[in-house]
Amino acid sequence: MTDSKHRRITLAARPQAAPQKSDFAIIDAAVPVPGPGELLLRTIYLSLDPYMRGRMNAVKSYSPAVEIGETMVGGTVSEVLSSNVDGFTTGDLVFGYTGWQTHAIDDGKGLRKLDPAAAPISTALGILGMPGHTAYVGLLDIGRPQSGETVLVSAAAGAVGSAVGQIARIRGCRVVGVAGAQAKCRYVVDELGFDACVSHQEPDLAARLADACPGGIDVYYDNVGGKVLAAAFPLLNVAARVPICGMISHYNDTAPPPAPDTLPGFMRGILTRRLTIQGFIIFDHQHRWADFYGEMSGWIRDGRVKYREDIVDGLENAPGAFQGLLEGRNFGKLMVRVGDDPTL
Amino acid sequence: MTDSKHRRITLAARPQAAPQKSDFAIIDAAVPVPGPGELLLRTIYLSLDPYMRGRMNAVKSYSPAVEIGETMVGGTVSEVLSSNVDGFTTGDLVFGYTGWQTHAIDDGKGLRKLDPAAAPISTALGILGMPGHTAYVGLLDIGRPQSGETVLVSAAAGAVGSAVGQIARIRGCRVVGVAGAQAKCRYVVDELGFDACVSHQEPDLAARLADACPGGIDVYYDNVGGKVLAAAFPLLNVAARVPICGMISHYNDTAPPPAPDTLPGFMRGILTRRLTIQGFIIFDHQHRWADFYGEMSGWIRDGRVKYREDIVDGLENAPGAFQGLLEGRNFGKLMVRVGDDPTL
Repeated sequence: MTDSKHRRITLAARPQAAPQKSDFAIIDAAVPVPGPGELLLRTIYLSLDPYMRGRMNAVKSYSPAVEIGETMVGGTVSEVLSSNVDGFTTGDLVFGYTGWQTHAIDDGKGLRKLDPAAAPISTALGILGMPGHTAYVGLLDIGRPQSGETVLVSAAAGAVGSAVGQIARIRGCRVVGVAGAQAKCRYVVDELGFDACVSHQEPDLAARLADACPGGIDVYYDNVGGKVLAAAFPLLNVAARVPICGMISHYNDTAPPPAPDTLPGFMRGILTRRLTIQGFIIFDHQHRWADFYGEMSGWIRDGRVKYREDIVDGLENAPGAFQGLLEGRNFGKLMVRVGDDPTL
Repeated sequence: MTDSKHRRITLAARPQAAPQKSDFAIIDAAVPVPGPGELLLRTIYLSLDPYMRGRMNAVKSYSPAVEIGETMVGGTVSEVLSSNVDGFTTGDLVFGYTGWQTHAIDDGKGLRKLDPAAAPISTALGILGMPGHTAYVGLLDIGRPQSGETVLVSAAAGAVGSAVGQIARIRGCRVVGVAGAQAKCRYVVDELGFDACVSHQEPDLAARLADACPGGIDVYYDNVGGKVLAAAFPLLNVAARVPICGMISHYNDTAPPPAPDTLPGFMRGILTRRLTIQGFIIFDHQHRWADFYGEMSGWIRDGRVKYREDIVDGLENAPGAFQGLLEGRNFGKLMVRVGDDPTL
């Protein structure tokens, strides 16, 4: 299963607005040899997630920036090729943050072993991994939906949004999604059981959202910001909660949008409707991992939660796939198959 | 103690931007006679509060608008002149929402009796009334300050802000105020024990705030919005809480401020620093009244909380005093002495 070379993708330049292919470099070298206390890993799946765009900027966000020339960061599912670490043996399947590369040397401390009999190993990057955990915590702990309330979620067909909507359904909520392509809207309604879905590509987004949410919105789980937030905001009910999970519509911004300043009107709404707007980062909520994993595993087994994966083959295609992610061209949890999956 | 006429101030026109004298009318009539189940009240003190500006607009905020020709709403301390209601007798002193007038007919249901031996009756409009309750709930329940944290409060010399800062000091926080006039800044530091106070009239507000908050800001209790919010926002620490109590800097706005749109940058800060921005209205928190009243009464008795009143004589001066409130010209809790205080 060992490839003959170690290929990795580094950040070659900081993107201005949308990332270009020239912002990445492909570096080939010999496969490294693990030293004492080290493992050699072979990457099977690499996760591509919106947060990576922030790591390409020079400014520190909640995590440090990737330096120019460094391997791009990312979650992976890997196989242990050789181990000098107690507790790991050749053939073990693990989740870790080993980045955009075919192989990695690791000390094992940040790795989590996967059981391929429990669930397909790719789910460790999606529904049973960080995106699913993000959906669970953001909806239940930050959004705190009550049965009978209306939950709106943007990027509804995405890895996080699709889980948010299904969990909200299980909790007895009316669930409305916002997605781009009509196929995605049909998918979340027909396959995932959302009550309605509105395309943000329609010209009359605000009116369509109002039609889909006749009782207003009690929880708006926001993954995108921008025009969807603007359209949802007037529909928020008194005491509504707005978990801020992402704002992908702005990740490529280079300057503030032109006039007028909408912040004062936003603050007025927060005050008069007693809204709670709360940002969160999943790293702060590791104490909820076991609850999430237990519940979500059960829901998947019972068929109450479904998921969809969008798998691109070949590490060299990661930059292009990531560009597509920022444009909403993926359909389901986006990942790259870097090497053969031995469980298939 | 009965005056010969009933004078009231009505809303004559909806203000465009700042209220003008011509937006109010003074109406004189005979003192009304209470019917069965009614009281006749004589107003002693009328409270003037920023929320009244919102009630002058046609749009419903959290409460209905005052109609043109209606008596302006407001909290009052009054004396019962005659009573056809069980439980009330002539000479009783009561708090109620009887508005901008010298007398009122009332059914007694919304009245709260005051004990002049417990505290000066004017405090029912300020430190022991709605403003004090607003400070207590907004700081403790929404802001949730921990000992050692830094609390920033705007309109720091006002009825709410001065109480917020003193409660935060009691809870072991570093307390920084923002006020206008230098005399107000000196007052909150020298008299109320704030650690620092910055004038928003200084040109370099952001730099002065940064100097006053070397460890950043954990709770920003916002009464004003606008440029103070903009200056405080970059200083908010990870997981900071921002209770939104008011936004007096915008109450006279007629249109959104010009470019650029600062909302996306604001949302980015909420996400990356996991901020909680939460609006609240004191009407939703009546269950905390007894806790507030008990603790605040004790703090006043012990000298741990001080308060200042700005009392204007004569109902006819209410419009001018209210204009001054919106411009920050009052110094302490603003009220109008409408009639003699029998306890003085």
